[in-house]
Order: sequence, then C-alpha cells, then structure tokens
Amino acid sequence: MAGIKVHGLALSTPTCRVLACLYEKDLEFEFINVKLHEGEHKKPTFLSINPFGQIPGFQDGDLTLFESRAITQYISANYANNGTRLIPQDVKEAAALLTWIEVESHHFDPLASKLVYELCLKPKLGWGETDGAVVEQKEAELAKVLDIYEKRLTESKYLAGEAFSLADLHHISTLGFLLETQTKKLFEARPHVNAWVADIMARPAWAKVLALRK
Amino acid sequence: MAGIKVHGLALSTPTCRVLACLYEKDLEFEFINVKLHEGEHKKPTFLSINPFGQIPGFQDGDLTLFESRAITQYISANYANNGTRLIPQDVKEAAALLTWIEVESHHFDPLASKLVYELCLKPKLGWGETDGAVVEQKEAELAKVLDIYEKRLTESKYLAGEAFSLADLHHISTLGFLLETQTKKLFEARPHVNAWVADIMARPAWAKVLALRK
Repeated sequence: MAGIKVHGLALSTPTCRVLACLYEKDLEFEFINVKLHEGEHKKPTFLSINPFGQIPGFQDGDLTLFESRAITQYISANYANNGTRLIPQDVKEAAALLTWIEVESHHFDPLASKLVYELCLKPKLGWGETDGAVVEQKEAELAKVLDIYEKRLTESKYLAGEAFSLADLHHISTLGFLLETQTKKLFEARPHVNAWVADIMARPAWAKVLALRK
Repeated sequence: MAGIKVHGLALSTPTCRVLACLYEKDLEFEFINVKLHEGEHKKPTFLSINPFGQIPGFQDGDLTLFESRAITQYISANYANNGTRLIPQDVKEAAALLTWIEVESHHFDPLASKLVYELCLKPKLGWGETDGAVVEQKEAELAKVLDIYEKRLTESKYLAGEAFSLADLHHISTLGFLLETQTKKLFEARPHVNAWVADIMARPAWAKVLALRK
C-alpha cells in the first residue's frame, strides 16, 4: 500500500475539506502541491487522477478519486474506526447526514463560494473589483438559507444530529474565508448558527489545516 | 410503519429520480402530487418535510428527508437487498460511485438542466423564447463533459463499474427530457456514451416512471 496522497493547494477550499477530514480521522498522508500557475492540473499526470483537471485529486494505494465530497465520504466510510466518527451509525441520523451534505453542496456552497470570490479572492489576488450588487444579492439569499440552518440547529446541536459529522465538516473550509469578510454578520445574527460556527471552527483538525497552510 | 411516501410532481426531474430508484428497488410507495400552481410547496405541511420548499419530499414511516440524491442514497443503502443493487459492494466501485454521483451533480446536471429549461420548458410551457446563445454555450460545455464520460465508458460499462448503479440512475430523468431535443446529437456522436444512454433509458423502472406520468 502506497499510502494516502492528496494533490491540491492549501488555499483551496475543496482541498482543505479533504485535509480537515483526514486530520479528523488521524490518518497519515502525503500532501502534493499542484502548481496551478504552471497549469500542472491540466497535464496528463494530474488528468489521470481527475479528468476534469480540478483540485483536489486523491490516491489511496492504487485507488484514485476526485471531487472533494466524494473523497471525504470514501475516507469516512472506509476508515470508520479511525479518529472521529463522521458518519452516524443511527439510521435516522445517517439519513439526515445525506440530506445535509446535499444542502451544503447545493444551497450553502454556491452562495458562500461566490461571496468568497467577491470579498476575498478578488481584492486579495487582484482579480478585479468587488461587485457590490452581487454581494448584496448573494448575502440576501444566504440569509434565507441561514434562517433554515438556525431552525435546524434549534432541533439538534449539529446538522445531522447530536454529534459532529461530515455534514458540518463540509462547511468549515468555506467558512474559514467567509468569517474574515463582512458576511460574518449573517452568522453572528443567528444565535444557534453562531454557536455552531464557533464550535466547528474550533476543531483541532481545522487548526492542523491552517498550520499546513503556513 | 406508515410506509413510503413521495411528495412531488411526475414531470419534475428530481421527483422522477426518486421514483426511478423506488421502482428499481421494487418498493411499494404512495405518490402525493404537490400542487405547485397553488403554492402547496410553500405551505407549512410541505415545509415541515422540506424547509427549502422544493420538491420532492420523502417520508419513510416517521423519517422525513429531502434532496433527491440524498433520498436515493438512503433508499439504496437501507433497502440494499430489495430489487436492483444500486450501491456496489466492492470498495473501489463504491468509491467510484461516490465520485460519479458528484460528477452528475456538479458537472452534468447544471448544464443538462439549463438545456432542458431552454429547449423543453420554455417552448412547452410558454416561459419565453429559447436563448440560442445560451444553448450554444451550454452545449459546448456539455460536449467537453461528455468527452470525459466517453473515456470513462471505454474503461467500464457503467460509470461506477461493470454494473448499473445509482450514478447511472441519477442521469435518467434529465436525459428523458434532453433526448427529445437537438442536444441528443451530443450523445449520439460518442459511441460509448450512446450505448450507455440506450442501455440506461431502457430500464423497466424508467418505463414505470413514464407510465405513472400519464
């Protein structure tokens, strides 16, 4: 077994989603920095791992995988007994996990990622001026989504139930950027969401991702 | 146990994704038509099932779920021994399943659904004129995605491996509309994609969904 390898970038949210998962599971891995500026992700070696040419790519021995949420689900299922249990054993909580993984992917992330792009990446990387109208619209949409999160988090401490799970973890890497922007106010305005954010951002696994970034 | 209930619309692709899955698993269920034109999906009864107010909603006894791809994964895992096995038992194929579920969700569906909107829904439901520029752009993007499918389908008969799985099933309801449009040519131009499409569209479970639609 050649071990676990993650091909990505320490500043990429999908890459960090996978790294946070590996740290939660106490798994050893090799991190391979993909030189996006040299177009390494569009070259045959990387394309043999992810034909879409997007980071992260993942290897576990001779198994290759891509798509961050598929990788985290593979790790959580196949290393169930390592580190933190990220997939609930209870049938109802496992079903809720599946739903809230989809909610993050289809309701939260498209808005959060767009706001990260406008409020973080554009100013920090010189990719152009922040579009205020887009920010206003996406924040209004995100506020509605977070109202639903607030209600959910009055029913259970975490999204899938009483224990931290993959559904919560999937948010962390995007939140890491978003909490450094004006959008932070949307989380602070909702007490259960605010407590949940503080809780999941304080995971030691996330601190390890931030340490790797440096 | 109050049985399985699907709340949706027989013409909605996410609803039909769930119905196709239930028929593959030979499960009995009750289909409840949600009167979208009366705004039933925004009323408390439906919102108690799906707080986002979108179809389909799903109940299995006292368990409620939403998000079509979460519902199909729940059904496939919890009724593993009924009807068609939709989640592979082999670790590598199960990992590939997770990846290709994400590919459908993030690469195929956004383009396919936009084309269905422009080429089917707009003309059929009088929602306005088809935007030719959007169609051209989305078809060009879909062609690139289908090139990757073509390569994948030279390696295995189905997306996750040698057996039909949930990753294939998730495409059927969108393909059902898309194959009635000019976009059909993109599938026909790729021999392995074309054979795969013909195969998965011929599933008896899909014929049952179409029968329910009438």
